[in-house]
Amino acid sequence: MTADFSAGAAWMKGRIIPIAEATIGVTDWGLTHSDVVYDVVPVVDGAFFRRDAYLDRFTASMQAARMDVGMTRDQIAAALHDMVAASGLRDAYCAMVAARGTPLIPGSRDPRDCANHFYAWAVPYVHVIKPDVLDQGASLWVAQNIRRIPPDSVDPRAKNYHWGDFTQGLFEAKDRGFDTVVLLDHAGNLTEGPGFNIFLVEGETVTTPDTGVLEGISRRTALEICAGMGLETRVEPLPATRLETADEVFLTSSGGGILPISRVGDRIYANGRPGPIATRARQAYWDLVRQPGYRHPVSYPT
Amino acid sequence: MTADFSAGAAWMKGRIIPIAEATIGVTDWGLTHSDVVYDVVPVVDGAFFRRDAYLDRFTASMQAARMDVGMTRDQIAAALHDMVAASGLRDAYCAMVAARGTPLIPGSRDPRDCANHFYAWAVPYVHVIKPDVLDQGASLWVAQNIRRIPPDSVDPRAKNYHWGDFTQGLFEAKDRGFDTVVLLDHAGNLTEGPGFNIFLVEGETVTTPDTGVLEGISRRTALEICAGMGLETRVEPLPATRLETADEVFLTSSGGGILPISRVGDRIYANGRPGPIATRARQAYWDLVRQPGYRHPVSYPT
Repeated sequence: MTADFSAGAAWMKGRIIPIAEATIGVTDWGLTHSDVVYDVVPVVDGAFFRRDAYLDRFTASMQAARMDVGMTRDQIAAALHDMVAASGLRDAYCAMVAARGTPLIPGSRDPRDCANHFYAWAVPYVHVIKPDVLDQGASLWVAQNIRRIPPDSVDPRAKNYHWGDFTQGLFEAKDRGFDTVVLLDHAGNLTEGPGFNIFLVEGETVTTPDTGVLEGISRRTALEICAGMGLETRVEPLPATRLETADEVFLTSSGGGILPISRVGDRIYANGRPGPIATRARQAYWDLVRQPGYRHPVSYPT
Repeated sequence: MTADFSAGAAWMKGRIIPIAEATIGVTDWGLTHSDVVYDVVPVVDGAFFRRDAYLDRFTASMQAARMDVGMTRDQIAAALHDMVAASGLRDAYCAMVAARGTPLIPGSRDPRDCANHFYAWAVPYVHVIKPDVLDQGASLWVAQNIRRIPPDSVDPRAKNYHWGDFTQGLFEAKDRGFDTVVLLDHAGNLTEGPGFNIFLVEGETVTTPDTGVLEGISRRTALEICAGMGLETRVEPLPATRLETADEVFLTSSGGGILPISRVGDRIYANGRPGPIATRARQAYWDLVRQPGYRHPVSYPT
């Protein structure tokens, strides 16, 4: 009898187990101090997309957090591969996590004393906004009562689970009927939202914020795609006021690629439909995902 | 055969289990979004200290986070009691936690769709700074490279696990040989540290910061104790520069009560020993903890 991986699988301490059985201890500092860095690589049509870019970022996040999980990069890559292969999932959201653990010295309150550990899990592909909503153009709320955690408090470039600001922002958005939310920084510039970066299209230029955000792999992919479309790409501070004059807005996420936005607050873009540049870029993303040079195929058991 | 609760016990879904078996799922938003509120009530000499104040704050934190764990306050109090009683621990750190859970609607990214849940755990009493260190006077580092998460990003009054700023601050402090760390806000005012509030003694006045901090129960107890000692008590913005001219510094925490500090960075207080007011207040705290009016005794099995 084989395990049931229909809802997903996890890799924990060298064992591949059903996702429902994958847990961490309630006293692990990964939970009690949200002392975790993580990353998520998408699996599409049976292959990891830009796997090495995600592994590079995960490695950098662990270094920034001063964590050593006692595994090489190749061992981590093998864990991800074997887990996804065992799961049978051909389209998956594949998370890799490094957690602080608990102190090896009883009673210590020193993060240097903890036994860091790695685990991973994969579930069927996650869309941060459902594709049928995106086809019509999704709606975005700019949070009014909450600001993004500043980078000198928690660095968003080391991908982390500090989502309290996003969660409060999501409540604001959902209460008003919006699909998702973007947060401003304390200077009134656009930052990012729960699981995505943001882009504005202004004429032949696309711009995404430079600081206070995760340096998304999908953001990088979108910048490359837009440059390939002959657009000028900019990475710079983006005051929220530019939402009022932009031609189009789109989001980028490993959970959906390029996500056209047709409404931000009261402002309607492109007659309330996905804009032409976002629509082309969205299609180009899915074309790129299927190009061999970007894929690490999974060897599923036969 | 009875379970081994020597390392602690947990209450999960109505069952009391050894702490080592208490886990939460790796996809619970309590972990993946650090979408948790919690509280910690100390158990000293076989009784909860100020139990109702902690339950009040936990209830307020759950309301702020819009969580409903489906338990009444009396049911939560009973869970805590029965867990500590079963553990046999007479001095304990007793944590109560509300977590967002996972969406009841598959694929939802809406926090309103989640099944919130409660759990609790108790371990032998935790000291944020060891008593033998406190007897000599502990050392405190003011973080240089990190600022406290501002309250308009994550409200510290709803007690939460967003400790990324504290963790980075602890690395700064521990690398320099200090016992713990305090963080400044973005205006240069003192806020709080990992698990404690801060007080300055200036002549006959004691002052603790008013905003950007947890409204600690031990902070409240210290304010009451200091007022009872005939000192003027103030709750107001506290610029870090006042560390240079203060007579004494102490911390307050449910993990140790009142904690005298004898050194902050290069500045030595009271000849590098616990100051006279902090020392009196520390003793008064432990006297108060044992007064019947503040205690909810645990009925241990005989």
